[in-house]
Amino acid sequence: MGYDQDNIFAKILRGEAPAHSVYEDELTMAFLDVMPQADGHTLVLPKAPSQNLFELPDEAAGALLLTVRKVAAAVKQAFAADGIQLQQFNGSAAGQTVFHLHFHIIPCHTGRARRRHATAMADAELLKQHAQQIRAALGSERAR
Amino acid sequence: MGYDQDNIFAKILRGEAPAHSVYEDELTMAFLDVMPQADGHTLVLPKAPSQNLFELPDEAAGALLLTVRKVAAAVKQAFAADGIQLQQFNGSAAGQTVFHLHFHIIPCHTGRARRRHATAMADAELLKQHAQQIRAALGSERAR
Repeated sequence: MGYDQDNIFAKILRGEAPAHSVYEDELTMAFLDVMPQADGHTLVLPKAPSQNLFELPDEAAGALLLTVRKVAAAVKQAFAADGIQLQQFNGSAAGQTVFHLHFHIIPCHTGRARRRHATAMADAELLKQHAQQIRAALGSERAR
Repeated sequence: MGYDQDNIFAKILRGEAPAHSVYEDELTMAFLDVMPQADGHTLVLPKAPSQNLFELPDEAAGALLLTVRKVAAAVKQAFAADGIQLQQFNGSAAGQTVFHLHFHIIPCHTGRARRRHATAMADAELLKQHAQQIRAALGSERAR
C-alpha cells in the first residue's frame, strides 16, 4: 500500500486542512494533537511523504530528530512538565492511525495520569492557547 | 544533576557490563532490553554521554535515528511483527529508569498484548537466541 496523498497530515502539510501549528522549517513541521493525551501533546512530522519510519529519507533523519528535540524542550518549558515521553507508531498493530510518519511529544507530570490516546477532541480555543504557549517557548528559534 | 558515568548503559558502552548486542557503529549501539515488553524488544543508544534527548549532540541526531530505523526493520523482520512501536522516555516522570538516552523498539503483533515494562528479567539463553535472530536480519548491514 503506497502513501495516501489525501491523509489528513498530507492535507495539513499542503495547507488544505487546519492545524494548531507550533513550528515549521524546510524539512519538518509540528502541530498539536487534536485528541491530546495531556495538555501540550504535540506531533512532529517530516514533510517528505513517508508512511512510517521505514520510508523516511536518509537526509531527513537528522532534521526530524532535531525538530523533535527542539519542540520537546519548548513543550516541557511551556507546560512546566517533569518529563517528556516520545512515542512513534509504525503500522496499525502498533497503534498508528494516520499514515504519515509522526512523533508524539507528550508532557508528563509526576503523579498525574495521562488521558487515553485518541478518545476525545480537545476544545479548539484551548488548543489555540496551548499552541501559543509552545510558540512563545520556542521564542526566537521559531522559524515562522 | 550531571551524567552518571556509572549508569548501566555507560558500563555496557565501555564493555564493562554484558549485553545482548545486535548492532554497533561509530556513534550508536543497539542491544536487547533484558526486561522485554515483547520478544525482540531492543534499545538503541547514542555513544555520546547524553542523559536524555535534550543532551544529544546535534551531530549524532541523524546517525541515531538511522540506526533506530535500521534496527527496527531488522526486529520487524526477525520477529515477523505487524508493526513497530518506538518509545523514548525523558525523566523519571516519563518512565525513564536508566539515565542514558535510549529508544525502545517494540515489535507489535495484531491482537497480542505486550508485557508490562521492566517487570520480569528474560531468560539469558532466550535473549541470546533473539539477538542472533536480529543480527541475522541485519545481515550484511551489520557493522560487527
